[in-house]
Amino acid sequence: MNYLLLACSLLLVQAPLFGQKPRARDIGIPFHGITGKFNAITDVKGVEVGYSTLVSGQGKNVRGKGPVRTGVTAILPRGRNNNPVFANWYSLNGNGEMTGTTWITESGFLETPIMITNTNSVGTVRDAVLKWFVKTGWYKEDFWYTYPVVAETYDGFLNDIYGFHVKESHAYEALDNAKSGSVQEGNVGGGTGMMCLGFKGGTGTSSRVVKIKDSTYTVGVLVQSNFGSKRNFTIAGVPIGQELRDTLNYEFKAPPSYRQEGDGSIIVVVATDAPLLPHQLKRIAARVPIGVGIVGGRGENGSGDIFIAFSTANPSAFQRENFTKVDELPNDFINPLFEATVQATEEAIINAMVAAETTEGINGNKAYALPHGLVIDLLKKYNRIK
Amino acid sequence: MNYLLLACSLLLVQAPLFGQKPRARDIGIPFHGITGKFNAITDVKGVEVGYSTLVSGQGKNVRGKGPVRTGVTAILPRGRNNNPVFANWYSLNGNGEMTGTTWITESGFLETPIMITNTNSVGTVRDAVLKWFVKTGWYKEDFWYTYPVVAETYDGFLNDIYGFHVKESHAYEALDNAKSGSVQEGNVGGGTGMMCLGFKGGTGTSSRVVKIKDSTYTVGVLVQSNFGSKRNFTIAGVPIGQELRDTLNYEFKAPPSYRQEGDGSIIVVVATDAPLLPHQLKRIAARVPIGVGIVGGRGENGSGDIFIAFSTANPSAFQRENFTKVDELPNDFINPLFEATVQATEEAIINAMVAAETTEGINGNKAYALPHGLVIDLLKKYNRIK
Amino acid sequence: MNYLLLACSLLLVQAPLFGQKPRARDIGIPFHGITGKFNAITDVKGVEVGYSTLVSGQGKNVRGKGPVRTGVTAILPRGRNNNPVFANWYSLNGNGEMTGTTWITESGFLETPIMITNTNSVGTVRDAVLKWFVKTGWYKEDFWYTYPVVAETYDGFLNDIYGFHVKESHAYEALDNAKSGSVQEGNVGGGTGMMCLGFKGGTGTSSRVVKIKDSTYTVGVLVQSNFGSKRNFTIAGVPIGQELRDTLNYEFKAPPSYRQEGDGSIIVVVATDAPLLPHQLKRIAARVPIGVGIVGGRGENGSGDIFIAFSTANPSAFQRENFTKVDELPNDFINPLFEATVQATEEAIINAMVAAETTEGINGNKAYALPHGLVIDLLKKYNRIK
Amino acid sequence: MNYLLLACSLLLVQAPLFGQKPRARDIGIPFHGITGKFNAITDVKGVEVGYSTLVSGQGKNVRGKGPVRTGVTAILPRGRNNNPVFANWYSLNGNGEMTGTTWITESGFLETPIMITNTNSVGTVRDAVLKWFVKTGWYKEDFWYTYPVVAETYDGFLNDIYGFHVKESHAYEALDNAKSGSVQEGNVGGGTGMMCLGFKGGTGTSSRVVKIKDSTYTVGVLVQSNFGSKRNFTIAGVPIGQELRDTLNYEFKAPPSYRQEGDGSIIVVVATDAPLLPHQLKRIAARVPIGVGIVGGRGENGSGDIFIAFSTANPSAFQRENFTKVDELPNDFINPLFEATVQATEEAIINAMVAAETTEGINGNKAYALPHGLVIDLLKKYNRIK
Repeated sequence: MNYLLLACSLLLVQAPLFGQKPRARDIGIPFHGITGKFNAITDVKGVEVGYSTLVSGQGKNVRGKGPVRTGVTAILPRGRNNNPVFANWYSLNGNGEMTGTTWITESGFLETPIMITNTNSVGTVRDAVLKWFVKTGWYKEDFWYTYPVVAETYDGFLNDIYGFHVKESHAYEALDNAKSGSVQEGNVGGGTGMMCLGFKGGTGTSSRVVKIKDSTYTVGVLVQSNFGSKRNFTIAGVPIGQELRDTLNYEFKAPPSYRQEGDGSIIVVVATDAPLLPHQLKRIAARVPIGVGIVGGRGENGSGDIFIAFSTANPSAFQRENFTKVDELPNDFINPLFEATVQATEEAIINAMVAAETTEGINGNKAYALPHGLVIDLLKKYNRIK
Repeated sequence: MNYLLLACSLLLVQAPLFGQKPRARDIGIPFHGITGKFNAITDVKGVEVGYSTLVSGQGKNVRGKGPVRTGVTAILPRGRNNNPVFANWYSLNGNGEMTGTTWITESGFLETPIMITNTNSVGTVRDAVLKWFVKTGWYKEDFWYTYPVVAETYDGFLNDIYGFHVKESHAYEALDNAKSGSVQEGNVGGGTGMMCLGFKGGTGTSSRVVKIKDSTYTVGVLVQSNFGSKRNFTIAGVPIGQELRDTLNYEFKAPPSYRQEGDGSIIVVVATDAPLLPHQLKRIAARVPIGVGIVGGRGENGSGDIFIAFSTANPSAFQRENFTKVDELPNDFINPLFEATVQATEEAIINAMVAAETTEGINGNKAYALPHGLVIDLLKKYNRIK
Repeated sequence: MNYLLLACSLLLVQAPLFGQKPRARDIGIPFHGITGKFNAITDVKGVEVGYSTLVSGQGKNVRGKGPVRTGVTAILPRGRNNNPVFANWYSLNGNGEMTGTTWITESGFLETPIMITNTNSVGTVRDAVLKWFVKTGWYKEDFWYTYPVVAETYDGFLNDIYGFHVKESHAYEALDNAKSGSVQEGNVGGGTGMMCLGFKGGTGTSSRVVKIKDSTYTVGVLVQSNFGSKRNFTIAGVPIGQELRDTLNYEFKAPPSYRQEGDGSIIVVVATDAPLLPHQLKRIAARVPIGVGIVGGRGENGSGDIFIAFSTANPSAFQRENFTKVDELPNDFINPLFEATVQATEEAIINAMVAAETTEGINGNKAYALPHGLVIDLLKKYNRIK
Repeated sequence: MNYLLLACSLLLVQAPLFGQKPRARDIGIPFHGITGKFNAITDVKGVEVGYSTLVSGQGKNVRGKGPVRTGVTAILPRGRNNNPVFANWYSLNGNGEMTGTTWITESGFLETPIMITNTNSVGTVRDAVLKWFVKTGWYKEDFWYTYPVVAETYDGFLNDIYGFHVKESHAYEALDNAKSGSVQEGNVGGGTGMMCLGFKGGTGTSSRVVKIKDSTYTVGVLVQSNFGSKRNFTIAGVPIGQELRDTLNYEFKAPPSYRQEGDGSIIVVVATDAPLLPHQLKRIAARVPIGVGIVGGRGENGSGDIFIAFSTANPSAFQRENFTKVDELPNDFINPLFEATVQATEEAIINAMVAAETTEGINGNKAYALPHGLVIDLLKKYNRIK
């Protein structure tokens, strides 16, 4: 490979990152529910998202050199405010990793940012979060320990995953870059090298705004989406995967013998400003499988489908010195939040696929982008849009 | 109410029980996958299903007199063979009851039939199972204790549920009537007074046959289906509930103040002859939410969505005197069983609704049957069938 | 058996019920921590306890006639106030039954009294609670469903358990009798026919008062104690069971072939007025095994060791119409409550044994009371008391 | 600090490592049950244990320079054989980390060594395990992903924990050093800087041999022990901690404001060759709290008490290409394994304390070794030994 080719390849792959990538609603895909301003997890006030994206090299894989198609995503529940949030989690299929979960279960609190990267970089990112706390003075002087939450999905079809290209600096970059407002999607951050439902996957986000009594609440979702069988891929009830079964596919030059259709993973982060207690946030996380299932996931054996939900309400819930009071949403009011979770999960997954670009990774392995035009044609064929 | 009217009413309600009720595939609804011979849970060899159906009275409710629209369903994993089966369970939303679950979790075994009835008769049915064991000599002489598995859904819109009409004898009847072969659906057994996704619900069943390596396995599902919001009701990806939102509905003469759309419950029983260990059966049970979600369930707050899965393989797994060996299906082979569980759950729910007849219960409350013709029209409109 | 003998037998067995039964501290057994006024679960304000005790017959068992040694215990978290309490539960060994737990897990609330009876009467008592709600107008008019919490331990060595002697009326009696203040122990209520650690077991209670910051909280425990191997029986670190291994024992005229040492069960109910959220109450319930273990339990296979914890704080936590605020105790303050739970569990178990009287049940089977004098001698031998 | 002082300090601290450290039974502490040959986790055939121990510097802490008192422990379930073992886990108090657990729960298998280190080095060790797999060819060529199990306890009172001194090379060293046979205890591996029940803690191990029917099985336990309040510290029922409350203690030059008595953690690894299925191994892990509780643990809020159990039986349980058969131990036979788990956990904790030497760490903080002579005197005072 000469330098010129590499440069071209990088331009090809990265160009869309600098433009405005389309979103599912932009191209006409219909969804239910009302989104927030950015249709993103950042519609939940305080939530910030940052990325570090690593793309370099092409051609035959040389372990430690690449090609590299990977990255790190950081979600900060209250931005730079280190105040813990009520949280809980659920694993639809545990073929994956999310560190820090035993303390969430026990305490009811998430004390750190949520990081998402590739399978083999969880450790590097995990300790980097602690170092970043020291670097940035995140915790007060006499703080002593916490357990960073780091999740992953596998990008080893496109990325030199055993080259361990993610370094501490990339975790810092994702954390330092975190911001509110609009959120990049597709081949970005931890989602860079992902594949989903027979096409290129990646990072996606969406939100819903619901009214409960006189209050308005937002549910925001961010996914790192790398799961599912093409044959189950469904948009708005239309069997997209079956219709497109012959026209496009993954290209593996050296398919790994153990790979099965449906292998992959999806990490889903659900944020809300509704005042949910930890056991209610478990309820939220346990509704995510419905959103994943509607699009085509089945919690396949080779998939790490792990979901975390947190609430930014109750900023004074975490106390070390004083008793406190917290707002509580009655269980009888929770249905709209369940519905919002399912809807935003579904849309975030489709958003990730709509934004993701065709990517050639290691050994010429290739994941094709979802063909927008054909999808729209199929939605028309099945009378879901005009 | 005079006797003649009552008789007419009963004929009206019960007539279809004596005929051949249609099933979803019969009227043209499309599904994926290959069914077993009966497209029923009884396609898993050994499984038997029995019912006791209570229908009497009409008009204003008089507590203890009725109208009565309720019943009991019995599922015997190995028929009259009392040999325990490996089992496990999952609760999508725990607003319900399934007794006997702590011992299933702990031991890995289901030791009793599974009974399903109305919410207020769980206790009667539970102790009746123990009495039936004594009556029938189900266990050997020196047996001492077990914990019957009894689940429920709520039929209090149509049935005089606080009249406690289910008696021990009805539990015996369901157990004694249990048989293999074709399985009645709709307004039958515990499903008699159920409502689902805006229409009359009830009991439904379905099965799938899958090939794994050189072996053929069956997954059978039986549901007592009483859940969901009409607005989310979906068949084959088509938004049936939204399309039919104005044309038909429940009629409540005195709607209870706390009822919310989506209240209700679904009990799902999954049987398989695949040699799954208890922790793998938990995996099966945890995929049921995807099938429920595809049809329109969201695990709503007012719904008791509790699922149990068992395997009839390994007839010698339960031992009290000897070490034993059991067959194990590798995790890498499990995906077709996940898919089959999702598909058969979906079809069993639709089957319950297709078979269920319009029912008038207490106080003139009425649940209308799914209008088959309109459903087929909608499937055509959305190009899902010709 | 003639009537005179029966009467004598009843006098023999029941006489101590009318006197003042000794408690562990009364006879000199040392414990840690400060108790509440009654050293009982009722020290948590609002908690009421009621019993129905069934003792009749002696000699050879005639199924349905007896001898009968059983009963029902009712614990009302807020007395006659039906306001739900935050709650959670834990199963150390699930060879038992506690109904109503899926809704506790899901909702975070306990909505009903907690009932404890024998293994085969769970169903009768469960439905009786619903009937009692109707009878007493416990719930408002438009209430529709709930899931009574009923637990059990096995009394089939002393009681004609397959005679099903517990009737609805006994559940009503226990509920109607419930009161605050001092609590009977030993052969009473559901604990009537129980055996524990090689001796007669039964019902026991204890409490601890702890100071956290400027607040004082009470932890109260009630046990139905029927578990454990004599060889592990320990009081204040002294190996009581081993020392007494030859001197006293159960007498089974016809020992069931499957019984193993350590079979039995223990239900533990923990009440507190500390403002714990549901996930924190799970933490409380999960510390109970330490108290059970210190006395000699090992979560043996044949034992149903199921524990429930609730908090009477936050009387306005349960809402159907309005948002609410709840008090929260910081996790950093919770250790004294863990310690209190362990200590009160330990003492409640010993109290049950100290109060229980030697009982002859079916077929002449006999469980001997703990020999107080020998226990005190052993505590002296091991220098735990002077 | 000059070089000479440093050298002296190292000699002082490390000297005992080169000698024969005493064990609890050696100094006369009584235990129940029969141990294996080495009274160590390695009595379970195939299990290997390796350490990397980091001790350097003394005096005031300089972040990144030390003093360093930390390390890494590696437990290889089948030695160099990478064949997965059935496994499961339980968290008594989740204030800690054990990576890789979602896949254990889901699959029933442990696929990697178990590593234990300090809180802030979990990530480094986690990714190092993957690199070691590559380095050593542990997995076959087309292997693609797994989730290393890495647990931790906190050594930040003695160790410069925010200096991140554990490097990949230390993980390799622990893995490469792993061996069968006798196992070092006390200030070694991940246990180097630990404190327990008011004294110096560390690494400890023990085993039990039980006979079930005609078969003999071994249960081996290894602990990294860093938990508990001195006031609850109990050996053989004797209140050691209370008796020694005034004579010895930790010395903190600058006590962290948030530290509470009882903070710390304990990781317990239970190995057995008994043929337990995954759900049965959960049962084993869930009995560990009883062993921890008997010695004085209460699952305190600041403690990460996380336990993992695996079975080396069934070497052919893990298959990717073929159906298989596995041996199963009936639940009715499991009690001796519960008892062995409790006993070996208790003894492993005491062994860790008996072997651990007085250690001065950062800022002159000091943890004193358990005073053997005084302990024996107390055992005599309470008549537990002659």
